[in-house]
Amino acid sequence: MPKDYLVPLLRESQSKILLLILDGLGGLPMEAGGPTSLEAANTPMMDRMAAEGTLGQIVPIRPGITPGSGPAHLALFGYDPLTYLVGRGALEAVGIGMQVKPGDVAARGNFCTLDANGLISDRRAGRISSEAARPLTTMLQTIEVPGVEIEVQHLKEYRFAIVMRGEGLHGEIEDTDPQRVGMAPLEPVAQDKASERAAKLLRQWIGSAQALLAGQPQANGVTLRGFGTDPVLPKFQDMYGLKAACVAVYPMYKGVSQLVGMDVQRFEGEQPADEFAEVARVWPDYDFVFCHVKKTDSMGEDGNFAGKQAIIEIVDQALQTVLDLKPEVVIITGDHSTPAKMKYHSWHPVPLLLWAPERGLQDLQTAFGERACALGGLGTIPATEILPLALAHAGRLGKFGA
Amino acid sequence: MPKDYLVPLLRESQSKILLLILDGLGGLPMEAGGPTSLEAANTPMMDRMAAEGTLGQIVPIRPGITPGSGPAHLALFGYDPLTYLVGRGALEAVGIGMQVKPGDVAARGNFCTLDANGLISDRRAGRISSEAARPLTTMLQTIEVPGVEIEVQHLKEYRFAIVMRGEGLHGEIEDTDPQRVGMAPLEPVAQDKASERAAKLLRQWIGSAQALLAGQPQANGVTLRGFGTDPVLPKFQDMYGLKAACVAVYPMYKGVSQLVGMDVQRFEGEQPADEFAEVARVWPDYDFVFCHVKKTDSMGEDGNFAGKQAIIEIVDQALQTVLDLKPEVVIITGDHSTPAKMKYHSWHPVPLLLWAPERGLQDLQTAFGERACALGGLGTIPATEILPLALAHAGRLGKFGA
Repeated sequence: MPKDYLVPLLRESQSKILLLILDGLGGLPMEAGGPTSLEAANTPMMDRMAAEGTLGQIVPIRPGITPGSGPAHLALFGYDPLTYLVGRGALEAVGIGMQVKPGDVAARGNFCTLDANGLISDRRAGRISSEAARPLTTMLQTIEVPGVEIEVQHLKEYRFAIVMRGEGLHGEIEDTDPQRVGMAPLEPVAQDKASERAAKLLRQWIGSAQALLAGQPQANGVTLRGFGTDPVLPKFQDMYGLKAACVAVYPMYKGVSQLVGMDVQRFEGEQPADEFAEVARVWPDYDFVFCHVKKTDSMGEDGNFAGKQAIIEIVDQALQTVLDLKPEVVIITGDHSTPAKMKYHSWHPVPLLLWAPERGLQDLQTAFGERACALGGLGTIPATEILPLALAHAGRLGKFGA
Repeated sequence: MPKDYLVPLLRESQSKILLLILDGLGGLPMEAGGPTSLEAANTPMMDRMAAEGTLGQIVPIRPGITPGSGPAHLALFGYDPLTYLVGRGALEAVGIGMQVKPGDVAARGNFCTLDANGLISDRRAGRISSEAARPLTTMLQTIEVPGVEIEVQHLKEYRFAIVMRGEGLHGEIEDTDPQRVGMAPLEPVAQDKASERAAKLLRQWIGSAQALLAGQPQANGVTLRGFGTDPVLPKFQDMYGLKAACVAVYPMYKGVSQLVGMDVQRFEGEQPADEFAEVARVWPDYDFVFCHVKKTDSMGEDGNFAGKQAIIEIVDQALQTVLDLKPEVVIITGDHSTPAKMKYHSWHPVPLLLWAPERGLQDLQTAFGERACALGGLGTIPATEILPLALAHAGRLGKFGA
């Protein structure tokens, strides 16, 4: 179990912790000398919390490593992503409520477009809509492969999830998406002997899928990626003694939370204010709430500097709702950086704000931003250390040794 | 051996290092916006050294972990406390000059008060004085247990140390102090098969002790804790090539120093000035002197903000004595934080001052304090890294690789 030195130190407490993740929070200036989206944003509430609290920077995986969202969130929860590898397929399948048990094999599927020679001409089938993709997913659900049970569910647009269940299955299988056009989809190849049965059955399934889709104008092929199973992660509650809830909109983040044993909440609405209302609703029942805001990352990926800034401002305006809950500890940070300038995830350290008025050591910083965080009192620390810091500031850890 | 990459780099040198530990140095403001004890203290000498030197912060064990004094000092000396676990019994016994050899079993003992039903009504026997406890310790010294040799020595007030010597003993034994009143003392329970013999013999010894103490008004019972043996730590001199002396007043700190192989000095007086005089006396004979000031921690534990400030000022006034020795490197830091506001050890990073006028990189900070240290040129580093930094600044390390 990661951080098992914490377990003997855990203390009973009524104190509560909010972990607010603004996905892809970290950024870069669009031009030298300019501000980042976070620095440009008008954030009176976060700035007040920065002045009252302590800033720092987190390194998601290792210096220089650009994280995917799955490993970045595992790190935030205290699981070193170099040790705990979880296939994206399992994360997404679990995130939309599919069962993935140890021994099942899950994968993420994409509809794609194949040309007359069977070569991929569009890896995302022209980004077909969810409306267009759902009936195709229903077709895939009719495929039967003897000896195993197969479940297929639509995710969003051209994406679906597949879970195979049966005896003797293992998921060490290579992606079938060649990651470029002009090539045929790859065969699912087992990376070890134990996974050969699953790979063979998946080849059967893919054959049936291509046959069923052959007449489609755009989505006449499939690729599969991110094979994996339930990694049987050590449970968050066992590691930290925290009863934990997840408030998130996107399947992926619900999936990670579910796999570590958090209670994933279902609620209406997708705006930060909707999420904070849900945080408030579940607050009395939990010690720890993880709340995930996605759109900061989406705006960064779109290269929309002002849009990212606007989302941060919307979050700031809604923050009073959660401060009214009187949390002992609030941590605001991101899972990674997504600079609008790069239109992509990046490796840059992520701004970290720890607000714990009872037990925190105020530093000299008075605004929440990348450059202020580099001067913050928490220093530059691995993302995996924020949970121990949260526990300490919540009065939930006893002394190590005498 | 920890940090064994240093060994091939060690170079002969005449340069000398002083490590001055102000126990529990780190603090918090009593109210938001205020100074810490260190920041409030008038410390012209430390501020001059800060201006000439480099500041930083150390993390004693891991972020968020509140250290006990034993593990915190092991970390300062470069031994990761998660790897090197030393029972407090061995530290305290060795600290008052008792022999604890590998295979011996040492523990810390407390006199306690038992009620008519044998339940603990006071875990510290009304904090009886050393004068009252010494004759009781003498009584305990008369107990014989066949097959082993047992030594008991008084420590201070209600505390004593016990060491058992003989064949086939192991110290993986649970504390007998239930840590609360209204319960009977626990039996010493072996945590592994090898420790069963020692646990059984200790039960015999405890039975005899209770019988001997039965008529006492306050101290009519005992509890034992912190079982352990000499952990056979790698020696400080082998790790760093430094002939090292310890100048400390309290047994615990002498114990840690002795276990890593330092020469523990005996001297008169308990004030910082007395300790610095002793540092000056032994200076010609050693490469490295560890000097430990306890009262900063005691004042913090008493919640005495001004008292802690006053001790820091007393140290500052006495510092000229050690600077007159012309040390190449002086490091001033703490083993952990003890904010007067919390009246307890805490996990906050500890201010670090490295003064090495020949080889240091002066940063922009000009006063020694928590917030200045967060901006210091050394960054926020594990406590286990200060010895390599000291060696480097003393010109005692060669180049790694070509």
